Amino acid sequence: MPKDKTPRVKTNPGRFFEDYTVGEVIPHAVPRTISGGERALYHALYPARHALYSSDEFARVCGLPASPVDDLMAFHVVFGKSVPDISLNAVANLGYAEARWLRPVYAGDTLRASSEVIGLKQNSSGKTGVVYVRTTGFNQHGLPVMEFKRWVMVRKRDPEAPAPEAVVPDLAPHVAAEDLVIPAGLDFTQYDFGLAGEPHRLSDYEVGEVIDHVDGVTLEEAEHMMATRLWQNTSKTHFDATPRADGKRLIYGGHVISMARALSFNGLANAQMIAGINAGAHANPCFAGDTVRAWSEVLDKAETRAPGVGAIRLRLVATKGGEPFTLKGEDGKYLPHVLLDLDYWALMPV
Amino acid sequence: MPKDKTPRVKTNPGRFFEDYTVGEVIPHAVPRTISGGERALYHALYPARHALYSSDEFARVCGLPASPVDDLMAFHVVFGKSVPDISLNAVANLGYAEARWLRPVYAGDTLRASSEVIGLKQNSSGKTGVVYVRTTGFNQHGLPVMEFKRWVMVRKRDPEAPAPEAVVPDLAPHVAAEDLVIPAGLDFTQYDFGLAGEPHRLSDYEVGEVIDHVDGVTLEEAEHMMATRLWQNTSKTHFDATPRADGKRLIYGGHVISMARALSFNGLANAQMIAGINAGAHANPCFAGDTVRAWSEVLDKAETRAPGVGAIRLRLVATKGGEPFTLKGEDGKYLPHVLLDLDYWALMPV
Amino acid sequence: MPKDKTPRVKTNPGRFFEDYTVGEVIPHAVPRTISGGERALYHALYPARHALYSSDEFARVCGLPASPVDDLMAFHVVFGKSVPDISLNAVANLGYAEARWLRPVYAGDTLRASSEVIGLKQNSSGKTGVVYVRTTGFNQHGLPVMEFKRWVMVRKRDPEAPAPEAVVPDLAPHVAAEDLVIPAGLDFTQYDFGLAGEPHRLSDYEVGEVIDHVDGVTLEEAEHMMATRLWQNTSKTHFDATPRADGKRLIYGGHVISMARALSFNGLANAQMIAGINAGAHANPCFAGDTVRAWSEVLDKAETRAPGVGAIRLRLVATKGGEPFTLKGEDGKYLPHVLLDLDYWALMPV
Repeated sequence: MPKDKTPRVKTNPGRFFEDYTVGEVIPHAVPRTISGGERALYHALYPARHALYSSDEFARVCGLPASPVDDLMAFHVVFGKSVPDISLNAVANLGYAEARWLRPVYAGDTLRASSEVIGLKQNSSGKTGVVYVRTTGFNQHGLPVMEFKRWVMVRKRDPEAPAPEAVVPDLAPHVAAEDLVIPAGLDFTQYDFGLAGEPHRLSDYEVGEVIDHVDGVTLEEAEHMMATRLWQNTSKTHFDATPRADGKRLIYGGHVISMARALSFNGLANAQMIAGINAGAHANPCFAGDTVRAWSEVLDKAETRAPGVGAIRLRLVATKGGEPFTLKGEDGKYLPHVLLDLDYWALMPV
Repeated sequence: MPKDKTPRVKTNPGRFFEDYTVGEVIPHAVPRTISGGERALYHALYPARHALYSSDEFARVCGLPASPVDDLMAFHVVFGKSVPDISLNAVANLGYAEARWLRPVYAGDTLRASSEVIGLKQNSSGKTGVVYVRTTGFNQHGLPVMEFKRWVMVRKRDPEAPAPEAVVPDLAPHVAAEDLVIPAGLDFTQYDFGLAGEPHRLSDYEVGEVIDHVDGVTLEEAEHMMATRLWQNTSKTHFDATPRADGKRLIYGGHVISMARALSFNGLANAQMIAGINAGAHANPCFAGDTVRAWSEVLDKAETRAPGVGAIRLRLVATKGGEPFTLKGEDGKYLPHVLLDLDYWALMPV
Repeated sequence: MPKDKTPRVKTNPGRFFEDYTVGEVIPHAVPRTISGGERALYHALYPARHALYSSDEFARVCGLPASPVDDLMAFHVVFGKSVPDISLNAVANLGYAEARWLRPVYAGDTLRASSEVIGLKQNSSGKTGVVYVRTTGFNQHGLPVMEFKRWVMVRKRDPEAPAPEAVVPDLAPHVAAEDLVIPAGLDFTQYDFGLAGEPHRLSDYEVGEVIDHVDGVTLEEAEHMMATRLWQNTSKTHFDATPRADGKRLIYGGHVISMARALSFNGLANAQMIAGINAGAHANPCFAGDTVRAWSEVLDKAETRAPGVGAIRLRLVATKGGEPFTLKGEDGKYLPHVLLDLDYWALMPV
């Protein structure tokens, strides 16, 4: 980067659409060591109660060496690392696909991340383009812990810059059950339903069944900012109240995901581990003062090769009021009270 | 639990009065591994400064292997585990008695809890009844870490259900000093009053003496919710602002206990370990925006068999304004500014 | 301390001006063991991203055994310990000088602190005096981890008490580069600029260069109180909203220092370790709701004897609005939007 006496030259301006090349791998900065501190904060910020993430003893009975950190924490850290390189100049986060958890993350692990550009398509306006990336998180042994694809609309620095050749990747509509990665050693044959908090096993759920998770949590500015900072997510819209007349900050969509997932304990206490995310939409913006509730729908069920371990595919919907089990209007658009529509796979005792 | 396509069947409806049987032992769900993270959060949420809970070095000089987590943290975790089974349908928490700490809890320990039903008495209205339980917390070795009795008024599911035979347990008016459990190895003969922060030993306190702890802390929604979540206490009244017109949430009574106890450092810095709670009343509700202050009264003093270790029985009163040392009106009822009236035993150098 | 039945006698009234003697060493109470919990909270409260403090792996490549806790955390803990003895009756914190970090602090370390009175000067009013102290923090091995000098204006208990002989210490205008202590083993020859987040090395910065750190963070009551409590800083003005008509609490100046330092990552990502503070002024009070921004000016550069390690002297200015790079008015006084003017040394790859 050339030296320049103009202020701001040293700060990161972020990449613009024409700065990306298909096939390029972008290593993300600021690796992060996770400790019991991050784990405790996760439990202070979200009403998380899934027993596998709460108790080392429970995790050991399930064949793991200790209680991992919440799967969504791994996602948030990896996602946060990608923000300065991928979405600093993003106009919109358009979607997620093919997220898979590849290896549990434990206190003591150090995470880093990189993204490969897998597609580029300039928009007809010429002012923006869509960037498709596959982002992967790695632990200190260089082993992948999770991966996901996302696509964002990014501004061009120069609207006159020529459009790159359009490359649009094939994105699976959902992760196939047989492609889910089951953590080594996971075994639910000794699973203690009493300690887990609910008696329902995979066979107790039916495809099409819906569950109202009942409880609500009213969000505070301090909490969503602490969470978002902890993932070292630098997107200024979450922290700076001055651009908006109402002094609110747009809440990081991942905060809503974690809140809704934690609330889903009540009815899905045995949907222990998140193994994949098939699709996700942040349907409406979320602000401090909103009271988040959640409901789920069972989309599919599958077997796995691990002893006693099945997979359940769930739609998790977060709302800020409105009737449960309502999602879209007659126009096919999300209703105004819907915050999140997430399609994911979880592992559950059969 | 029968399968049913009606929504909500999978969520925990809680137990009603007629679901309890005297003698029944209810194991509580979601064991919890404690780390340095919970310990740090406790110090971020409360102005806790008792040296034995702040420094491994100080704790070792007192004969312990390391600095334990705050005694009230053990109480909050064990209490929180009991909420889904005992007080989800409670109309009122009527009282505590005979709480004893049996063994310090350290970072790395995993806590679980169970409750034995020790009494049942239907109210004359037929709509509710009083459930008496003894709740015990255990560590990962199956050893008890603390126990307490509490009684709650619980709704009946069916007002026509027959009343059970009334069983009202004998509850000691207070824990006898000789029944307090002193942690193995505790020895205050090398106690460093300079590092502890105050010079006053047990012999410097007189029964009847009162102490104004002077400082005040104004409460915030984010803080009490983070604390209550950290104990995995799921009582929705603490998190959901929508049922109340003023948008406030009722603050978990344990948050007030921890705040008042931490404030009591200023004047009781050497009342290091909580060994028992004799009785406790949450005199008035507490909300964000209230400024909590505290005062104490010395109720009793006693010797213990541990070297240099005495016991001091204290009344700890938390207020939200009002004159210190005022408690009840002429009608015998708590004055409106009184939040908490707690009667407890602490261990102090003689 | 004499026994007395009047309330409050057991609480700490703090020292007044006539209670200090030049040469006296005051050991501060309540040693503190630091864990990964404090480290995680630091990252939740501030947008801290300097890689050396985020990743054990990154720190090891730089020759350290693990990632230390943030240098400012060590400062906050040591400073917090000194408050009950030095500044409880302070009218004003007048200044800092000659702060040096002597040894990194790691999770597991226990910190304690003491202060030596190095100067005393009664003010002409006879009601107050200036107390100069050198405060030093030590780890559990008795080794110093940091030291600083500060001077505060303290009330006299008795205006009629005789003035002590005036002793005003020599205070260096800044720490000389050759007096900076480089942590044992620190080596930036294998430094990974990609993982650190920015390509700029010491030779890329010019004396006189200014950097706008761009981002802003709006402050919340819950956050600054959690931070200040975590450092066991008991100054009541930060916690009690009742003395002020607007219900706000004065934010601990150290919260602004940590926030500004974290924001300075954007443009100074490689100014990894803070080695000294030359001077610091809290130019205007800060309250919840203020949006903090920061800019820096390069004041000096120097070599060190450690491989690949240079030192950069920076002015770090925190503001709550206003134009960047504006500091003082024509009257020489700080402009009303300036919160902090800090002059410090950081270590950076050459």
